[in-house]
Amino acid sequence: MQTIIGVDLGGTRIRAARFDEQLNLLARTETYTRSEEGIAPTLARIMAQIETVWPGGADEVAGVGVSAPGPVDPAAGVVVAPPNLYGWHNVPLQRYVQERFDRPAALQNDANCAVLAETQQGAAVGYHHVVYITVSTGIGGGIISHGKLITGARGLGGEVGHTILVPDTGMHGSVEQLAAGPAIAREAGRRLKAGADSMIRDLVDGDLSRLSAKVVGQAAAQGDALAQELIAHAGRMVGVLIANLMHVLNPEIFVVGGGVSNAGDFLFEPMRKTVREFTIDTSYWRGVPIVPAQLGEDVGLIGAAALILTGTG
Amino acid sequence: MQTIIGVDLGGTRIRAARFDEQLNLLARTETYTRSEEGIAPTLARIMAQIETVWPGGADEVAGVGVSAPGPVDPAAGVVVAPPNLYGWHNVPLQRYVQERFDRPAALQNDANCAVLAETQQGAAVGYHHVVYITVSTGIGGGIISHGKLITGARGLGGEVGHTILVPDTGMHGSVEQLAAGPAIAREAGRRLKAGADSMIRDLVDGDLSRLSAKVVGQAAAQGDALAQELIAHAGRMVGVLIANLMHVLNPEIFVVGGGVSNAGDFLFEPMRKTVREFTIDTSYWRGVPIVPAQLGEDVGLIGAAALILTGTG
Repeated sequence: MQTIIGVDLGGTRIRAARFDEQLNLLARTETYTRSEEGIAPTLARIMAQIETVWPGGADEVAGVGVSAPGPVDPAAGVVVAPPNLYGWHNVPLQRYVQERFDRPAALQNDANCAVLAETQQGAAVGYHHVVYITVSTGIGGGIISHGKLITGARGLGGEVGHTILVPDTGMHGSVEQLAAGPAIAREAGRRLKAGADSMIRDLVDGDLSRLSAKVVGQAAAQGDALAQELIAHAGRMVGVLIANLMHVLNPEIFVVGGGVSNAGDFLFEPMRKTVREFTIDTSYWRGVPIVPAQLGEDVGLIGAAALILTGTG
Repeated sequence: MQTIIGVDLGGTRIRAARFDEQLNLLARTETYTRSEEGIAPTLARIMAQIETVWPGGADEVAGVGVSAPGPVDPAAGVVVAPPNLYGWHNVPLQRYVQERFDRPAALQNDANCAVLAETQQGAAVGYHHVVYITVSTGIGGGIISHGKLITGARGLGGEVGHTILVPDTGMHGSVEQLAAGPAIAREAGRRLKAGADSMIRDLVDGDLSRLSAKVVGQAAAQGDALAQELIAHAGRMVGVLIANLMHVLNPEIFVVGGGVSNAGDFLFEPMRKTVREFTIDTSYWRGVPIVPAQLGEDVGLIGAAALILTGTG
């Protein structure tokens, strides 16, 4: 049987898995990344994880796909300089994997792997024009158009979070600066310091240094008005981003993942409403679902394997 | 010899031309559109123009490409409802041309044809990741990524002008509303009414109803400070759009056309400066030219023929 190996290199964990050609999971392993110990030990852990899921017997490995934190140069197969991998700078990970296992390898950043994964097995199965947006500590994205991953000339595309919504404030006016998790937490802090009445204060036991988008999401789910307002504001900002991308890329579906998306309809409803306000014609949004991501923590593994399956990267 | 026919259907003129397979012009004709006379006479004029450039003798026509004002549905081959073609609504122009001449036909909107044309014969020859932006009465665009025209699921993509830069004002905050020709003329009028000292006033003989971006551009070229300021503002807004598109699409080159682009460096220099301010990393803009379009009034004809040559549409 032909099998595919997927590797998800993250700031916290390294995961590896073996899949069949329908991307069914056959074996899976994970360990901590501990990049602070240096590049060589981290690389050794990556290789060991791959070995752990390598097939025995007559099964063949078609290739090894790797999802890594951006920025990644997929054409060169290089991990450029991710802020959450200590000391990594222009590491030719694709070549290392290829030479170590003598099989084809492919490398892409995590958001690009995520859009492939959601299209293969998640919320966007059957679609050919997909935009994936992750709203988390930052805002990132992946784009599939006409069935192909769109990464641009140097693989730096899909960075939808840096879209400017308020030019007067420079890069502070990007949707990431206005709507990602830290912005939600920061605004909650500002409002609480100004004396706002909200259960968010109780959820952090009055310690504003513990504020996070997650806590705000929890308060929203329990009916807290301020929390719902903060999430709705983020939803509207992401909604403007989605409207922009509808005009530029005219996709069939938007998939929104990342921690902040766990706020559910408190985020998604303002998002969907804003999209209708900011598009020039109903044809851009009518029949275009804006849905939560479906894949959980295995999204990177599935996407990495999909790089090999789809011949991407 | 194999030849290709290109047709440029515009609100004012219908042009048709015959090209060889290197897109060299072999024959060319044009007439007025006069769409107010009705769809049937206009269609008859289109067919007559094609006949005029049809090859005699043994030459064969590989296909007929048509550039039309958007919105266009390229998959269905339908001109949807362009504001400058009177009464046109869901006209299946591709099928009409195909049936009349018994050759393959293709249809795309003018901005998508323009990016193909500039890539084949103009400012972006040799590039595979190209964004074309036209700054005129509106702001439109065309995208080539990984060598292919990106039009999205229903051919509605590339409409970069509707990118929102100032969400507080709804659709009035789009880059088109802030930076296209009418915005430049409107702001000139506002400043002149407020008593600004500028030669723009003399160029329109004091008649503010004659204000246009073209007049403002002329004044800028003659050293008028207000005119240069207005053009620079438009340049900065388009620069923010370009920065956004760099993050999303990571192209190799931007080509800027349309009437407003005739203002030259008064527009392009603020544009290029703004791009550097609004990108997260130099790798997005370094070595990425932002250049004027090179093709003149034949851009639509060349792009239409390129639809056939490249198998697009």
